[in-house]
Amino acid sequence: MKIDLNSDMGEGFGPYRLCDDEAMMKIVSSANIACGFHGGDPDTMGRMVRLAKQNGVGIGAHPGLPDRLGFGRREIPFQADELRQQMLYQLGALMAIAKAERVAVSHISFHAAMGSMVNRDPVLSDLMMDAIATVDANLVVFVTSGSEIERAAKRASLKTLALFLADRAYDAGGRLVTRGLPGAVIKDEAAVRARVRKFLLDGSIETIDGGVITMPARSILVHSDTPGALELAGIVRREIEATGATLAPAAELAD
Amino acid sequence: MKIDLNSDMGEGFGPYRLCDDEAMMKIVSSANIACGFHGGDPDTMGRMVRLAKQNGVGIGAHPGLPDRLGFGRREIPFQADELRQQMLYQLGALMAIAKAERVAVSHISFHAAMGSMVNRDPVLSDLMMDAIATVDANLVVFVTSGSEIERAAKRASLKTLALFLADRAYDAGGRLVTRGLPGAVIKDEAAVRARVRKFLLDGSIETIDGGVITMPARSILVHSDTPGALELAGIVRREIEATGATLAPAAELAD
Amino acid sequence: MKIDLNSDMGEGFGPYRLCDDEAMMKIVSSANIACGFHGGDPDTMGRMVRLAKQNGVGIGAHPGLPDRLGFGRREIPFQADELRQQMLYQLGALMAIAKAERVAVSHISFHAAMGSMVNRDPVLSDLMMDAIATVDANLVVFVTSGSEIERAAKRASLKTLALFLADRAYDAGGRLVTRGLPGAVIKDEAAVRARVRKFLLDGSIETIDGGVITMPARSILVHSDTPGALELAGIVRREIEATGATLAPAAELAD
Amino acid sequence: MKIDLNSDMGEGFGPYRLCDDEAMMKIVSSANIACGFHGGDPDTMGRMVRLAKQNGVGIGAHPGLPDRLGFGRREIPFQADELRQQMLYQLGALMAIAKAERVAVSHISFHAAMGSMVNRDPVLSDLMMDAIATVDANLVVFVTSGSEIERAAKRASLKTLALFLADRAYDAGGRLVTRGLPGAVIKDEAAVRARVRKFLLDGSIETIDGGVITMPARSILVHSDTPGALELAGIVRREIEATGATLAPAAELAD
Repeated sequence: MKIDLNSDMGEGFGPYRLCDDEAMMKIVSSANIACGFHGGDPDTMGRMVRLAKQNGVGIGAHPGLPDRLGFGRREIPFQADELRQQMLYQLGALMAIAKAERVAVSHISFHAAMGSMVNRDPVLSDLMMDAIATVDANLVVFVTSGSEIERAAKRASLKTLALFLADRAYDAGGRLVTRGLPGAVIKDEAAVRARVRKFLLDGSIETIDGGVITMPARSILVHSDTPGALELAGIVRREIEATGATLAPAAELAD
Repeated sequence: MKIDLNSDMGEGFGPYRLCDDEAMMKIVSSANIACGFHGGDPDTMGRMVRLAKQNGVGIGAHPGLPDRLGFGRREIPFQADELRQQMLYQLGALMAIAKAERVAVSHISFHAAMGSMVNRDPVLSDLMMDAIATVDANLVVFVTSGSEIERAAKRASLKTLALFLADRAYDAGGRLVTRGLPGAVIKDEAAVRARVRKFLLDGSIETIDGGVITMPARSILVHSDTPGALELAGIVRREIEATGATLAPAAELAD
Repeated sequence: MKIDLNSDMGEGFGPYRLCDDEAMMKIVSSANIACGFHGGDPDTMGRMVRLAKQNGVGIGAHPGLPDRLGFGRREIPFQADELRQQMLYQLGALMAIAKAERVAVSHISFHAAMGSMVNRDPVLSDLMMDAIATVDANLVVFVTSGSEIERAAKRASLKTLALFLADRAYDAGGRLVTRGLPGAVIKDEAAVRARVRKFLLDGSIETIDGGVITMPARSILVHSDTPGALELAGIVRREIEATGATLAPAAELAD
Repeated sequence: MKIDLNSDMGEGFGPYRLCDDEAMMKIVSSANIACGFHGGDPDTMGRMVRLAKQNGVGIGAHPGLPDRLGFGRREIPFQADELRQQMLYQLGALMAIAKAERVAVSHISFHAAMGSMVNRDPVLSDLMMDAIATVDANLVVFVTSGSEIERAAKRASLKTLALFLADRAYDAGGRLVTRGLPGAVIKDEAAVRARVRKFLLDGSIETIDGGVITMPARSILVHSDTPGALELAGIVRREIEATGATLAPAAELAD
């Protein structure tokens, strides 16, 4: 079995760092690279692309809202075409930086509020997916299984890859439990390991209320911007390898 | 004879405008579109691309330094690779926005301080031109005849198009007279018309000290960010048509 | 009778201008100076303060949301204390720039979305007014008559000055008719003149549905960022003078 | 003997942190708070002011160039009055935020490139010091002994406080050895402790070439943005206390 392990990378800016990107790039198989709006800058993007190339890691665009102060987490009432141009701008910026290093952007994963805004609006989802497909029909879109973005990507004939967040609780409907609610973030290492193992062996996870649901994901997302993120990513990677699964970047797994 | 008429466009930002871009787009044959660093923003870029497409105008990237406050006119001591990534970022951003409208970026023209910094440094010129050639070998580079950028573009096998600034004085060596010196900017309409006519008919211009030099240019640049810019552009266009020359975008004329 | 005439000023940025501030400063008696967030920058603020000083115009802070791209018109979900610190930051910045020119900031007028957000929330209004009163208890707060900001300013023992927007329609309740609705903006010069005259002579205005209401304002706001703003401001000023009223800055009129 | 221990604080931005400011605020006696240009933002500034108040730490403004990407370390060719307005803007912003917490800004310390540019230019130094004195004649200016800023501050009748950088080498002329040269930064803890002790007991330090010079400083600056900064600050503080000296904020020591 092949599985992707991905993380958001290059989300620092100028003198600031959120993650030891050099170390994280040795753990993941796909990197979602911030594109200079919520985090990142051209210099950091160039560095991330080179690191990904050196480590055989798949390169993805991680566009966000133009809100560095709020790290792209606040919803700002942009119009649909403004959001579309903001996404295209960031995607294209990374594509050129990657192409100059003779590698290609293979996937796209929306950041925070931009993702939430797109995911809630089928019209906007279609607008975004059509734009992505027009720019590069081979791009893989990272999705939550059952989401608007997944449906719109399919309508635009784009390949998708569904994500499993190993350290986050899900409800019986397969939705993420909102951050801030009790139990939403799973911090116990043994619990995370057990979830990853069950997901890899059974394709299922235990929900927050104790039930079991299938988790039709092919990629595990680990956070990079929290204390202990690197350690957690290493744990997940070792658990993947312990089950006999093989890491593979997004482009090999999407459908 | 075919000649290109180009201008810097979309250099506003959010609520701000420097030029009536809608009107200017009906006059020029090539548009150098600001890419969001010294001027412009994703929404404005999308609007410029659509206007250019509607008017059959060639689309060019107009990258500048990340200095909106100084409008990209101040030299800031970035390192060579930082400048390269900044240029790639802006170029790629416009390429994706254009591709989503099913048109292509055909040329690149550096803005202000970024241009000066590149033009003075052969190593940086090579670095930039190699990056451009790797991203798209068909891009035309706008140059001053005899400049470092022209030589580096040739070394990188990129096509170039030399510019003539119709409202600016040149010295006997074919160099622009520095802004601020007496006579550097030619404001008299009749004088501008006469210069354009002589350039089109003879391929030569009169220098600031009264001599005549050849002006091996295939494109006339008109400014967009000064009072009366639109009128001056119209005058130049009518003078071109009066000589029997035909307007053509950069991609048709470069070599 | 004394009346204040005020306008938002210095809302350009770097190379950008929204208004001929030099000309407008000769017409108004109070200037609401943008403080570098939605518009303005330190250099522009210094220029505005000097112009105001030269023309005997009252100096006010015009703080907005940190959203230059959206010109402070979009509501962004900041927390109450974030908004408070943003307001204080901008107010203090202008106070120091003014003090270095040996003049003082005499009033404060909120811009666009920051104003709307404060005006809708009594808790936030109190938080803001208490902060203003702690920084300078003599500051005059520009208000809409009957608004939350007016009530909170009174609770904080701050002086207020109620505004009349001469080119905007009001409903029977004394509220501004929302921009975009038919008749919301009054463009006919004669109509604006008539409204100003009626307001000055009777203290009342005609509402959008033909009724008459009292308009308990002591200051007329004219816009600076629309075409024809300067002409309209001149018309209003001449109408004020024609009725025999005298212009006076905010600090002389507030209570 | 009384001595001040100071550090640059609040230099993060939005989601980014450069220093554990909460912990550092328990060690220092004066905090130089970034004012939103090279680092910091209104929310962070408010937090820093509250922390300083809780810990009895002196509050200083730490203005820098408007260059967040370059962390204010790159010299950008602003004109003298632009720099003056930028400094006033930042100083005033912090003064209002502090005043709203019922505390006052007591000192000012220039950051990186802004400091270098001012220190090299006597005309600019005078311009800056006159502006500071006009805004608040009681402000203490942090200086290097023998610098242009010190001379200009004296001319403007401002109090100054000379700094000693405990972990940096000095040459025989009392100038800092340029970063990047061998031995410029002293990383050995015992060496730093010894330097602090000698400085406190003799008022002198050993130079990079083995000589001894007097160090007429009343304040020790410890960096906050390097790994191990907090530990180093703690070591310096304990060394101060071990010699029997007492920590005191800038305002008590300046002359």
